Amino acid sequence: MAKGVTPVQAADGLTTRQRRNSPLVIVHGGAGKGKSTAAFGLALRGWNQGWSIGVFQFVKSAKWRIGEQAALAALDDVNRSTGQGGPIEWHKMGSGWSWSRKAGTEEDHAEAAREGWEEIKRRLADETHTLYVLDEFTYLLTWGWLDIDDVVDSLTDRPGYQHVVITGRDPHPRLLEIADVATEMTKIAHPFDKGQKGQKGIEW
Amino acid sequence: MAKGVTPVQAADGLTTRQRRNSPLVIVHGGAGKGKSTAAFGLALRGWNQGWSIGVFQFVKSAKWRIGEQAALAALDDVNRSTGQGGPIEWHKMGSGWSWSRKAGTEEDHAEAAREGWEEIKRRLADETHTLYVLDEFTYLLTWGWLDIDDVVDSLTDRPGYQHVVITGRDPHPRLLEIADVATEMTKIAHPFDKGQKGQKGIEW
Repeated sequence: MAKGVTPVQAADGLTTRQRRNSPLVIVHGGAGKGKSTAAFGLALRGWNQGWSIGVFQFVKSAKWRIGEQAALAALDDVNRSTGQGGPIEWHKMGSGWSWSRKAGTEEDHAEAAREGWEEIKRRLADETHTLYVLDEFTYLLTWGWLDIDDVVDSLTDRPGYQHVVITGRDPHPRLLEIADVATEMTKIAHPFDKGQKGQKGIEW
Repeated sequence: MAKGVTPVQAADGLTTRQRRNSPLVIVHGGAGKGKSTAAFGLALRGWNQGWSIGVFQFVKSAKWRIGEQAALAALDDVNRSTGQGGPIEWHKMGSGWSWSRKAGTEEDHAEAAREGWEEIKRRLADETHTLYVLDEFTYLLTWGWLDIDDVVDSLTDRPGYQHVVITGRDPHPRLLEIADVATEMTKIAHPFDKGQKGQKGIEW
């Protein structure tokens, strides 16, 4: 495809500029690697545009995102000290792991997740950020902790120019329906298959 | 799966520590988005580990990676000025686009790509970096610009502890054979489908 050539004629009545400036819902699903790393890669692009970025980490231990968190915090520092790029906030919204919910009851985790989602809704209403990374957010819907109607309505009704990237396996079909961009990361080969374990710099 | 539990018994005779420290070949293929962004997300993790990172951009215009390049350059600056993280180099190895090879002849581009690959081979032999991002590298094989035997041998025979991440559509089957981790990014929905065009912060 040649650069800048749109293969399908738009049926939305928008000008090219309007379409270019459409805020997007982006979903990274699938069982393969890269769902979250690709979301943080997008954050690099947004940072360079001077966007305010909010990362909302829902269900994984801090250990597994320490690299991204440290690097994005360093970029936030660069923004504060030099004005280059944009500000980046990182919020841990839950208290548990996706695969080890021993600490606290499930209801504790569900309540923490719901409070986190309410905070995101407030920020969307206030147009706090230009890019939201809702990391591992799909599981909250899979587990029934959030109401899909509430999530869909809040995303589709969000005001202004706010991109939202959602990661996690098995995204709810209605999330995919409202997504402007959705990618499924599928595993082709994996070191776990050979009995390998995660290693620093690669898994966290 | 519980954290740290390996589902398949390793048959390689290595200890857990040895497997943890295995250098990996990682391939991000498929027609969907996220191949390169996920590679740059991995670079954030490696940076935080203090790794030397080399990014080798083969066939795309600088425009489409300006966000990542600026952000990774800022992280390299942080490393130089504070010692946090690791050094990051960014090298443009070709002179053309993957979809617009008008500027220069095809042979010019092929020659530039071959020279770039020779430089990477020298660095692998010298153990220059801990993480190599070979962005859009698969096309060089698709187009027959590089010899697959040479690429496979150079990757599998590389000394020491060096991770190599390769991105691009239609990775050569032999690349997938030697990959320790391979993910296919598949498009589920996409703004181009609605006649949308790329926009800053998202596409570059």
